[in-house]
Amino acid sequence: MSKKLTSRAEDYSKWYNELVVKADLAENSAVRGCMVIKPYGYAIWEKMQAELDKMFKETGHQNAYFPLFVPKSLFEAEEKNAEGFAKECAIVTHYRLQADPDRPGKLRVDPEAKLEEELIVRPTSEAIIWNTYRNWIQSYRDLPILINQWANVVRWEMRTRLFLRTAEFLWQEGHTAHQTKAEAMTEARLMNNVYATFAENFMAIPVIQGVKTESERFAGADETFCIEALMQDGKALQAGTSHFLGQNFAKAFDVKFANKEGKQEYVWATSWGVSTRLMGALIMTHSDDHGLVLPPSLAPNQVVIVPIYKSDEEFAAVSEVAKGILIDLRAKGITVKFDDRDTQRPGAKFAQHELQGVPLRIAIGPKDLQNGTIELARRDTLTKTVVALTDLTNTVENLLKEIQETLFKKALDFRDSHITEVNSFDEFKDVLEKKTGFISAHWDGTNETEEKIKELTKATIRCIPLEMKEGEGVCVYSGKPSKGRVLFAKAY
Amino acid sequence: MSKKLTSRAEDYSKWYNELVVKADLAENSAVRGCMVIKPYGYAIWEKMQAELDKMFKETGHQNAYFPLFVPKSLFEAEEKNAEGFAKECAIVTHYRLQADPDRPGKLRVDPEAKLEEELIVRPTSEAIIWNTYRNWIQSYRDLPILINQWANVVRWEMRTRLFLRTAEFLWQEGHTAHQTKAEAMTEARLMNNVYATFAENFMAIPVIQGVKTESERFAGADETFCIEALMQDGKALQAGTSHFLGQNFAKAFDVKFANKEGKQEYVWATSWGVSTRLMGALIMTHSDDHGLVLPPSLAPNQVVIVPIYKSDEEFAAVSEVAKGILIDLRAKGITVKFDDRDTQRPGAKFAQHELQGVPLRIAIGPKDLQNGTIELARRDTLTKTVVALTDLTNTVENLLKEIQETLFKKALDFRDSHITEVNSFDEFKDVLEKKTGFISAHWDGTNETEEKIKELTKATIRCIPLEMKEGEGVCVYSGKPSKGRVLFAKAY
Repeated sequence: MSKKLTSRAEDYSKWYNELVVKADLAENSAVRGCMVIKPYGYAIWEKMQAELDKMFKETGHQNAYFPLFVPKSLFEAEEKNAEGFAKECAIVTHYRLQADPDRPGKLRVDPEAKLEEELIVRPTSEAIIWNTYRNWIQSYRDLPILINQWANVVRWEMRTRLFLRTAEFLWQEGHTAHQTKAEAMTEARLMNNVYATFAENFMAIPVIQGVKTESERFAGADETFCIEALMQDGKALQAGTSHFLGQNFAKAFDVKFANKEGKQEYVWATSWGVSTRLMGALIMTHSDDHGLVLPPSLAPNQVVIVPIYKSDEEFAAVSEVAKGILIDLRAKGITVKFDDRDTQRPGAKFAQHELQGVPLRIAIGPKDLQNGTIELARRDTLTKTVVALTDLTNTVENLLKEIQETLFKKALDFRDSHITEVNSFDEFKDVLEKKTGFISAHWDGTNETEEKIKELTKATIRCIPLEMKEGEGVCVYSGKPSKGRVLFAKAY
Repeated sequence: MSKKLTSRAEDYSKWYNELVVKADLAENSAVRGCMVIKPYGYAIWEKMQAELDKMFKETGHQNAYFPLFVPKSLFEAEEKNAEGFAKECAIVTHYRLQADPDRPGKLRVDPEAKLEEELIVRPTSEAIIWNTYRNWIQSYRDLPILINQWANVVRWEMRTRLFLRTAEFLWQEGHTAHQTKAEAMTEARLMNNVYATFAENFMAIPVIQGVKTESERFAGADETFCIEALMQDGKALQAGTSHFLGQNFAKAFDVKFANKEGKQEYVWATSWGVSTRLMGALIMTHSDDHGLVLPPSLAPNQVVIVPIYKSDEEFAAVSEVAKGILIDLRAKGITVKFDDRDTQRPGAKFAQHELQGVPLRIAIGPKDLQNGTIELARRDTLTKTVVALTDLTNTVENLLKEIQETLFKKALDFRDSHITEVNSFDEFKDVLEKKTGFISAHWDGTNETEEKIKELTKATIRCIPLEMKEGEGVCVYSGKPSKGRVLFAKAY
């Protein structure tokens, strides 16, 4: 193994970047801002996908696939959406390369192969999808449409970081169409709730559900619901969003339906998405100075078995016990790997599995064979115990549950102890300086105040919590009346 | 339901196009050559993905994800590969739109936002992946690398058809790296074999495994293995390919490893892929003039239950029985849908499920309730039987197996009866004219003869079968010596 990680206290950002690479999750590629998701990182993403996909299907959604490209004329149809994404679009202008006359063996863009209309590589798919829905929707009988898509999208970000902000990322985007405003609003809330449940129960990441202020809304939405998580360094991370799009896209793409009375109405819409950014949230919620810490539900291997041996005979004896354990644990649906590589010593294997966050590590050596025991090491607490082989399956099963719960509880305690109510702007700035997470403060509801606070402190309104503490107050900045506290933070 | 399909005899191509759209599998989009895969079509593709993914993992492969874009300088590194794909590349040249001064509210490409180096939207990922592998491979301990990617790719085809040839398509591409030529060759054969097993056992499509001639090889490969299927109209369809890439990409990207003796060697490579084109193969192998016919393993719903009723009481009584059936069938792992829509009459439901290829349809009406029976209709044979409720679960289970086997057997009989051995060029042309499928003929092994035959007949050498009938002979065109028969056909 390469040398130790930078500690979080020393440089949180550097710790993150090193961890992503050293734990074999992802790396930068030859394409500016685009990442390579390595097998270990991708295996975690696949677990997220599988669980989300199940939740989407259980709530009545189906998957489909729409084109990667959006013709410019469609892209610009919904003006706010277009304006919001115009500054970060990858644009296809040509469709052929040809031999470069000046550089033998090399290629150049064929100037004759210019597209009549430029194609935008989708930064999000509302435009292409609503242009399609126009043909799918005639009557109320065609509604609702409840579709999700797993896809790659491209946003030409200038400053990128692995998983958190990349030019290309993987995500899912739900796009639904409804008869009524109420039904669409219910859908948008439902899916935000699905995200919250997923984040908390599956990723062990506590989140706050809320709505975005107007200035932080998705371009083209009338309301954006979100789940906000708090990272270990006190910065917030938007982990998922669900948008009530009103009739904006229906009007831009002329999507009407005949209601039960035969009257033509515009359709109501939602869209919602989470992305590989969740990998960043996962890392920055649970991991420590030794490396990744994975909740068992997301670990590609929940348990790893490392054999300790000096001779072929010892290896054979240890392997036999290990294989019995494999069978027993797998029968319980536990994913377990027998790390019998002969190219690495046990110490190197321990270090790797620690760095990669395997929740439980079993070591078996010759002494264990005599005693009918194994050594069990827990990644989250870095504690070791000796366990009788006969108890092992139950012990492992219970510990995996316990680790999942402990991680959530720990993150929840951290989050809850990092929400500070402030009543003056000096307090506000003071808390921010100490990197203490969310600030709960009164705000006068205006764009101007929000902008001004952002300008002065870099903190933004992360959300107006759905469970907002009601109660009159005065804005922490302007002193004007406020209807309740909102959550501010610096954010990823 | 809209009016009947064009029959296959009348116009096979028209039948195909209509079926894809009417069965709700896919449709054309606003982007030239790009398709929308609709939920029903996508659900079938998901079943293919799940099975293939399992087979890849069982053979030791892991998934990962590489960038959508390939910088031009990397794209052109492997010259044959670059030359092969240069004529059909979508090229990103700019990264920003701006307000169009001439058209208020509209956007144009920002001329200031020109990329320093153009980016090719991947038509295949060897270049970007081998550029990455260079950093992953130092020693023999780093090998083999066995990676697969599920992704979208773009090839700017001029003539497109839904699923069969689209500008953007979905696929998986495996990219492996090995110490020795023999190991890479074994991998390429193994994966071709995985494809053959998948096609036959899961899709019920009989395939012939073979190798491509030099002119039909993947650009950059030293050997291309393939599986070739025969469609109902007598045209062949390449359903999957697995390439032995030699050291071509290792040399182009300078990927070397230190072998056990510490000597530097170039790495050996394979790549292999199947795509949404398989949807086309599926349709053109099994479907009929009434619509789609799906093997049970690929059917989103293996069974559909249609209630027949005139009153609310009848509906309630029928529903109760239907729900019991749902529970029983689902307990056996059978996917079953209760089509209780009140917006459609039973006749319309029957027509839809027939068109969409649901393998088994159960109808339950008031008379059935009295008799303790249901009506069971089989999609592949279009036959109906009355079955006692008590026997139903076993009957359905057995029938699904039988349908799967019957479809394969039927397709195999068709295929085998459409391989014609010919010994003269007149015979060759005669068979082609009758659209009778594969032609097994002697060939002299030269590019010239292959080209000439293609020019004269539009038939190409689909493959040199792995189980080639050995035996000297004379080339059907040139009269020169031949070592065995190869398979010709017109192809999709």
